[in-house]
Amino acid sequence: MTALVSGDPSARELRLGTLTTGSGRALSGLRLRYRVLGNTQAARENGWILVFHALTGSSVAEQWWGPMIGPGRALDTSRHAVLAANLLGGCYGSTGPREWAVEHDDPFPELTPSDLAHAHVPLVEHLGIERLAVVTGGSLGGMVTLEWGRRSPVPVDRLVVFAAPAATSAQAIAWNTVQRMAIEADPAWQGGRYFPGDGPTTGLAAARALAMITYRTQLEFGARFGRASSRTPGRFDVDHYLRRQGDKLVARFDAASYVALMRAMDLHDVGDLAAAARETVRRVGMVIGVGVDTDILYAPGEVRAWTEAYRAAGVDARYREIASPAGHDAFLIEWDQVEAILRER
Amino acid sequence: MTALVSGDPSARELRLGTLTTGSGRALSGLRLRYRVLGNTQAARENGWILVFHALTGSSVAEQWWGPMIGPGRALDTSRHAVLAANLLGGCYGSTGPREWAVEHDDPFPELTPSDLAHAHVPLVEHLGIERLAVVTGGSLGGMVTLEWGRRSPVPVDRLVVFAAPAATSAQAIAWNTVQRMAIEADPAWQGGRYFPGDGPTTGLAAARALAMITYRTQLEFGARFGRASSRTPGRFDVDHYLRRQGDKLVARFDAASYVALMRAMDLHDVGDLAAAARETVRRVGMVIGVGVDTDILYAPGEVRAWTEAYRAAGVDARYREIASPAGHDAFLIEWDQVEAILRER
Repeated sequence: MTALVSGDPSARELRLGTLTTGSGRALSGLRLRYRVLGNTQAARENGWILVFHALTGSSVAEQWWGPMIGPGRALDTSRHAVLAANLLGGCYGSTGPREWAVEHDDPFPELTPSDLAHAHVPLVEHLGIERLAVVTGGSLGGMVTLEWGRRSPVPVDRLVVFAAPAATSAQAIAWNTVQRMAIEADPAWQGGRYFPGDGPTTGLAAARALAMITYRTQLEFGARFGRASSRTPGRFDVDHYLRRQGDKLVARFDAASYVALMRAMDLHDVGDLAAAARETVRRVGMVIGVGVDTDILYAPGEVRAWTEAYRAAGVDARYREIASPAGHDAFLIEWDQVEAILRER
Repeated sequence: MTALVSGDPSARELRLGTLTTGSGRALSGLRLRYRVLGNTQAARENGWILVFHALTGSSVAEQWWGPMIGPGRALDTSRHAVLAANLLGGCYGSTGPREWAVEHDDPFPELTPSDLAHAHVPLVEHLGIERLAVVTGGSLGGMVTLEWGRRSPVPVDRLVVFAAPAATSAQAIAWNTVQRMAIEADPAWQGGRYFPGDGPTTGLAAARALAMITYRTQLEFGARFGRASSRTPGRFDVDHYLRRQGDKLVARFDAASYVALMRAMDLHDVGDLAAAARETVRRVGMVIGVGVDTDILYAPGEVRAWTEAYRAAGVDARYREIASPAGHDAFLIEWDQVEAILRER
């Protein structure tokens, strides 16, 4: 069942059949909100493009990775059709904790990046997609992309994974733990059962502020803020900046979605890399793993490691590294380098 | 006025005269709680040792840096007397926010590491100390040590600064900002006016959990915890560990003290290094700046930079680096290397 939503003629909704999670749970009634951009006619010949957004992104409310998507751009909407759905668990239309709470008494189910990828299979089938020219995404979207490579129901020419490891490290789980603790310190969290209220806004702001540090670098903060206090008397500019980032996220994102997707990231673990590579090589022509030289969240060495393991197991896998002072977020900033990688064949 | 406190005959208290802060505020009624260990007789000949503890340390409740202090140890109590006071702003006996609130309606005053050092001048005079063989400390204590070098009322043979920059970086302020935001997300914070209550325990726990990540390294967390969930079902061990660290700190430390001392760290800025070096060279024979190769809180390059600037300005300044997988906390872990540096002449 497909329905138009929110006045945007390109935004649609698919009610999924039963989704069986990797942990064996059968979920029904889930919906994916998605958008199709570009030339579906040409896509029959040239293949579709599938894009997975990052933690707080939306492919519908705003076009995530917009600078890469359009006629003549790296993800070329004149030659392809781009399918971009919002991930389950989020708060931009696909079923997340807020929608779940309307119809269920139990908490929103625990989903892994593998489950998030799996949920897109019916969507690809629903749209009659027979071939994917490119599947790509960054960070959480990169994890989902990597999992897609293992389970794609249709052939994939190129799988391009930005800034994502094969398994989330203890350090990355640690950053998420502190974010959870900050959210829990806000009594409005109420164990995640605050709907229809706004929930823990001050806790979520603190969580986002921490995340922002892990998305950027000491180098960038030093050059950009230093020890200046030019905005608010007695408050360092970096303090001002982080609070502003927190406020901005609170205005557009839901805390329970944030916690659900952080948990998905914690649970990310491709498992045995040789086995994953064998599943991938049957479906995917070429894999590019992309690290960022200054990423403190998912170190470039982690991306290089799985790329090399994939190559050793027979995948045409390449490692590319974005050079940037910006850290993890470079895949949303260094557009020239991102574009060059996306155009690689 | 000196008085014994807490049943420990070596723990004493000095009521300071008026302390004029760097910002020009005159504070009265402050007290320093301190301990003298070792041979005061021998110290007349060999000099005293002054030790400044780190953020949540105590030189009285427990002997901070204990393994370094004792007969025959690097800080040798058979040849010297060790003076170790708790920093103003803390919660182990020297005046902090809790004591301040008993007698004042206004918030606890903003103190810098320079002010914290300055507060020790009357103590050194009170004890009749004429020469300091060693002044040392780590992290916040290292900042205070560095400031001591500029204002010591008596000659100092060796100033040994562990894991402290000359000015706190935007990145380090950023970590502290998130910690403040987590504490503020807990309504028990009440703007810091929660006395005599316990205050924001869940917020402080989250803050401590974040601090612990910055004190350690990705390498250590990976080796120690990996992706195991052996302690609590469904909870990663690193999550369990960080929550436990939060709980442990909450049981022994006050949130307002924590915020006051974080603010002191943010405000740490020696200023013009050549000028600071000129003030230091008049008082101090030798300065050692010690970085930790894996420190993500105060990068080793930051310590090296001020050491080199001091040397260029005529100080006998040396840079030493602790090699450790442990990160910032290495000055509390790598005792062999710490000891070798403290013994250097």
